Amino acid sequence: MSSSDIFIGETIGTAILILLGGGVCAAVTLKASKARNAGWLAITFGWGFAVLTAVYTSAPLSGAHLNPAVTLALALKDDGIEWSQVPTYWGGQLLGAMIGAALVWVAYYGQFHAHLTDREIVGGSDAETSKTKAVEARETAAGPVLGIFSTGPEIRNAVQNVATEVIGTIVLVLAVLTQGLNDSGKGLGTLGALITSLVVVSIGLSLGGPTGYAINPARDLGPRIVHALLPLPNKGGSDWSYAWVPVIGPLVGAAVAAGIYNVAFA
Amino acid sequence: MSSSDIFIGETIGTAILILLGGGVCAAVTLKASKARNAGWLAITFGWGFAVLTAVYTSAPLSGAHLNPAVTLALALKDDGIEWSQVPTYWGGQLLGAMIGAALVWVAYYGQFHAHLTDREIVGGSDAETSKTKAVEARETAAGPVLGIFSTGPEIRNAVQNVATEVIGTIVLVLAVLTQGLNDSGKGLGTLGALITSLVVVSIGLSLGGPTGYAINPARDLGPRIVHALLPLPNKGGSDWSYAWVPVIGPLVGAAVAAGIYNVAFA
Amino acid sequence: MSSSDIFIGETIGTAILILLGGGVCAAVTLKASKARNAGWLAITFGWGFAVLTAVYTSAPLSGAHLNPAVTLALALKDDGIEWSQVPTYWGGQLLGAMIGAALVWVAYYGQFHAHLTDREIVGGSDAETSKTKAVEARETAAGPVLGIFSTGPEIRNAVQNVATEVIGTIVLVLAVLTQGLNDSGKGLGTLGALITSLVVVSIGLSLGGPTGYAINPARDLGPRIVHALLPLPNKGGSDWSYAWVPVIGPLVGAAVAAGIYNVAFA
Amino acid sequence: MSSSDIFIGETIGTAILILLGGGVCAAVTLKASKARNAGWLAITFGWGFAVLTAVYTSAPLSGAHLNPAVTLALALKDDGIEWSQVPTYWGGQLLGAMIGAALVWVAYYGQFHAHLTDREIVGGSDAETSKTKAVEARETAAGPVLGIFSTGPEIRNAVQNVATEVIGTIVLVLAVLTQGLNDSGKGLGTLGALITSLVVVSIGLSLGGPTGYAINPARDLGPRIVHALLPLPNKGGSDWSYAWVPVIGPLVGAAVAAGIYNVAFA
Repeated sequence: MSSSDIFIGETIGTAILILLGGGVCAAVTLKASKARNAGWLAITFGWGFAVLTAVYTSAPLSGAHLNPAVTLALALKDDGIEWSQVPTYWGGQLLGAMIGAALVWVAYYGQFHAHLTDREIVGGSDAETSKTKAVEARETAAGPVLGIFSTGPEIRNAVQNVATEVIGTIVLVLAVLTQGLNDSGKGLGTLGALITSLVVVSIGLSLGGPTGYAINPARDLGPRIVHALLPLPNKGGSDWSYAWVPVIGPLVGAAVAAGIYNVAFA
Repeated sequence: MSSSDIFIGETIGTAILILLGGGVCAAVTLKASKARNAGWLAITFGWGFAVLTAVYTSAPLSGAHLNPAVTLALALKDDGIEWSQVPTYWGGQLLGAMIGAALVWVAYYGQFHAHLTDREIVGGSDAETSKTKAVEARETAAGPVLGIFSTGPEIRNAVQNVATEVIGTIVLVLAVLTQGLNDSGKGLGTLGALITSLVVVSIGLSLGGPTGYAINPARDLGPRIVHALLPLPNKGGSDWSYAWVPVIGPLVGAAVAAGIYNVAFA
Repeated sequence: MSSSDIFIGETIGTAILILLGGGVCAAVTLKASKARNAGWLAITFGWGFAVLTAVYTSAPLSGAHLNPAVTLALALKDDGIEWSQVPTYWGGQLLGAMIGAALVWVAYYGQFHAHLTDREIVGGSDAETSKTKAVEARETAAGPVLGIFSTGPEIRNAVQNVATEVIGTIVLVLAVLTQGLNDSGKGLGTLGALITSLVVVSIGLSLGGPTGYAINPARDLGPRIVHALLPLPNKGGSDWSYAWVPVIGPLVGAAVAAGIYNVAFA
Repeated sequence: MSSSDIFIGETIGTAILILLGGGVCAAVTLKASKARNAGWLAITFGWGFAVLTAVYTSAPLSGAHLNPAVTLALALKDDGIEWSQVPTYWGGQLLGAMIGAALVWVAYYGQFHAHLTDREIVGGSDAETSKTKAVEARETAAGPVLGIFSTGPEIRNAVQNVATEVIGTIVLVLAVLTQGLNDSGKGLGTLGALITSLVVVSIGLSLGGPTGYAINPARDLGPRIVHALLPLPNKGGSDWSYAWVPVIGPLVGAAVAAGIYNVAFA
């Protein structure tokens, strides 16, 4: 694969991933959306099939990592990719994630406006609405609109939050690395995309409760940057104090998974 | 494939698609349906598996486009289908969509009657029920029965509505076009049908919130015509002022996707 | 395939189908079940994966028809099965369906008792509980316990009920018949089982609202006989006046689908 | 496969299985989890995709039994595995299940604390909260936190509880044993992992209502031991009087299934 194919493939693929993944969060969260309050199953299947769509579309160009942690693991894996390719993958992934987040804003433009300006009215000055806001704020750690872009913990505890992201990413990366062992020579790469997407549904259902399962640094950082840049009224802060957790946790998890793979499976 | 196989395949396939897709909307909406209020996940999986069933059944005859936007993209694609075949595909798709919508009416005949005549009684003359009707009308832009046939926006804004349909169709068509790259020579066309159906679930979950994701001109126009023709009491208008959006948006999206494909993937 | 393999395969397969299909209805309906009120999606996926499990398990023995309507269609299909095999298939299917329904009763023994004896207490003598019973009776046409065994219409109208069953069965049988065209020579029979099961989920979501989608005479008749025989307290009638609809409707639908297949696809 | 590959594969695979399976129970149960009250569908899909992830990851090392009942059935099967391998499989499975349960505790550390210390406050001394506790206790037979680790019956009846586990395990093991007949020589082992996982979803939806479907001795016993050892405040008892049911039931079911297979399918 040429460097330009890798960059373009990762950019397109990660843009689709975040458009669909951020899209389901917008669909479930925002006012005037037909999917409002569709629930946790909708979110986890939405992210899983976002992975399927994005991997399937971009695999012919770049192999569809779409996640800096996966790229790191494939570089650490014995007989993996070249280290010199890593910056190309990571660059495409971060750019794609930002494009995807911006497209969510385009697709849900009116919904964002209706949601955020209604909040402005509700969040007036009297004590009762302050209480309402406090209750709403509990839904996601950093406000309901940031939750469409980036992850946030239910309980803010750096050690646990990192641990949860490490554990989730180990599961993801082990499944990605063993794909080669399961499918080699059988031409079932397409089936591998399907199974990876259901692994992501699984991680969401089972390990998403505490932090919202970033398990992908680009998935969290790119949209957070876009959240900071977009001209959204009443959008609140971008919670930069948490931003390092969904970057470091997945990278550590990927390194641990690659180590397990090299020792036990290779 | 002969022209008659194409026409018959597209007619049968699109009829199944709309029978099952419109059917899940009827199932979730109408009174005296066991599936009433089954929710957004039921609708999105219902439409996705409608695509699976329809594609799987009609693929041996016509290749199962079942969507004028997909046909357009395959004509614009380098080495795609002949332009002369396009009218045959489009004709079968529109006829099939109308047959499918009529079959929904047959399968849910008593439910339509119970639903619409109860509304008549409820929507009497006093102010309170008028208010109730206004609240109900918010559920879909053009009333709950039209929503079984055609799509409608939550917020009526032509620019955003077209943009959302364009974005959703780009995702769909890119996945359809890359199918050839993923499966070529491996005989996994059946798996491609499954993955396409899950891509449609994904688009529904993630991008369906604002407009109800037509992403297919025949899916929207054919049933809208049937809605206008059917002798349903209290059915309300067919919202023709919106009808161009789910036709133009998907066609533009397909053209954009074919352009991306020809530049980046071919 | 030998006659004994066919009979044993169909008996085992249909027993698994009804054990799991009836099981999900018991799980969602009965008191003291962890799955109580899990909803329509649970029922439709439960039946779909029941088909998957049953087809996958019995396919090596009998080809896994598990449905008299499917057997009829395969006999009517050009180059289909021998008519002399039909009674063996049908016999195994009916016996299996009865065994499966009895196993549901075993697996949910205490739940049936808790559910039915509570109803006895509730359904005392005063007018108010009679009204409650009337409301409950609306949930399924013939009472909540018969609904675990057999289907019943929401609106009792023989013409519409037959039509809905005919339409649903046409969709099912067309997908089964085209499986040969999609998979021939590719060894993807396993994938065909998966797709058939998702077609059944689709029919449930989209066409199950009016009658509960029998689309299989054995699925309805076998458990209805078991309902009539089981020593359940307060079980109510077995609604024999409706029993012909889910037998005749699917057989007519299968004949229509085989005709369409022979004309358009063969 | 070497003994060390078997032991390592079963340990890793069963750890992933219980991490994800116990994880979805924690996600749905505990306070301060984004997935709280996501419902029975989330639990059953969560366990099913846990099986998929675990089987897919560990299959290249050990063949991915991940269940002492499956190992027993494969030893009883004609031309199955060597009896001398059984202790290696069982040892890895039990160790893995304990590791997985401990990892659930790590990933949900703060959630466990918030949940259990809130219960302490709620479960004070006055009569009303005692009543509340009684209502809550009905949710699972042995308290909501044990339910994250082990199964418990809704109605405590040893004969029915064993029967339900036997029936569920027969369904699981028959599907696993026939996989060889469906896929032999076609290289579709990956697809077999997917289908097995959907069979587990099916068993959960259809037969999980009475006992919570252990259908796997290690899945129940390993986490129960961890529950007994973990320093959780207010965790309640580990319900050892029930612990034999989800061990004996699945082993009996596996033996019955192997017998059916050897007689009818071999």
